[in-house]
Amino acid sequence: MMKIYGDAKSGNCYKIKLVCELLQIPYEWVEMDLLAGDTQTASFLSKNPNGKVPVLELADGRCLAESNAIINYIAHGSNLLPAEPYDLALVQQWQCFEQYSHEPYIAVARFIEKYQGLPDDRREEYLSKQVGGYKALDVMEQQLTNADYIAGKTLTTADIALYAYTHVAHEGGFDLTNYPNIQQWFKRIENSANYVAMG
Amino acid sequence: MMKIYGDAKSGNCYKIKLVCELLQIPYEWVEMDLLAGDTQTASFLSKNPNGKVPVLELADGRCLAESNAIINYIAHGSNLLPAEPYDLALVQQWQCFEQYSHEPYIAVARFIEKYQGLPDDRREEYLSKQVGGYKALDVMEQQLTNADYIAGKTLTTADIALYAYTHVAHEGGFDLTNYPNIQQWFKRIENSANYVAMG
Repeated sequence: MMKIYGDAKSGNCYKIKLVCELLQIPYEWVEMDLLAGDTQTASFLSKNPNGKVPVLELADGRCLAESNAIINYIAHGSNLLPAEPYDLALVQQWQCFEQYSHEPYIAVARFIEKYQGLPDDRREEYLSKQVGGYKALDVMEQQLTNADYIAGKTLTTADIALYAYTHVAHEGGFDLTNYPNIQQWFKRIENSANYVAMG
Repeated sequence: MMKIYGDAKSGNCYKIKLVCELLQIPYEWVEMDLLAGDTQTASFLSKNPNGKVPVLELADGRCLAESNAIINYIAHGSNLLPAEPYDLALVQQWQCFEQYSHEPYIAVARFIEKYQGLPDDRREEYLSKQVGGYKALDVMEQQLTNADYIAGKTLTTADIALYAYTHVAHEGGFDLTNYPNIQQWFKRIENSANYVAMG
């Protein structure tokens, strides 16, 4: 059985769990204590030289890092990942958007507020994250005007990638009241068969 | 013929040009003036709601954004992109590493030094980028100890993604003297048939 090395508080790790549950693929979850240095041991660095969770370890010992690479690998051949090249490219497009234009603002603001208690020495950084975060939310809101899902007509791993931190964006100070399309998109995802909540 | 909307100074845009040249795929390059607001017009935002280059526009008008999604789309079916699911996932893994753990340090430091002239009000940020940049270079140097290319035995779009800003990292203040594996990897890529330099 495949193993997932993860942190239950991390949206990036939750993506893997959610995809496995949606596809009913069995896995063993290995909870990692980042503060205790679990991701910096020689053993873990041999699985991911970048020293970060999540990591997927296959039954034969091969490993894979980076949340979006992992969920696309797991979803390969399923209805969560298109086979047609352009549709597949759109999934990766939105996953790149998530990692570059969304996560560094929304996930980091959430970490500073929820897990660090918004300390004074990170307040300026926290406030600067609000600007980029709302810009990413604006792009998503507009995209969801014309489509039920972020990369088209069906649920894909692009939705899972963006859902992970967007649905807890309020924990980073983001008010989603004026984002009705995003709120309806949350409901569509949460009504999917075998959906599981984060945590 | 497909069009590439890009900025000749951008490593992200160079990735597309290099893949097209390596594969000898014809394209029309549309140079965008970012300072003049070319990426914020209604016309351009209809191609990419995130308002960034590069954007690929296909002959039928469909568009694709995000450099790594674009190069994988263009390389689909070629020897630059593996078809085997795990090998393909490794390519995306290293591309995610590039966009999250490499580009925000090395490309941003280069922008501040080369294009902004290292102004005083960004000096602190510039220095902080050195730490993350060297960490990314360390991960690459280690990976290239055991492999000729970043995701395995052959040249893939993962190499193109990482080469784009690594080979100009010195323009952002990074000294590659102690990275012999990375330097040999540069030569392997630059010796590829149909290689073109940036700019």
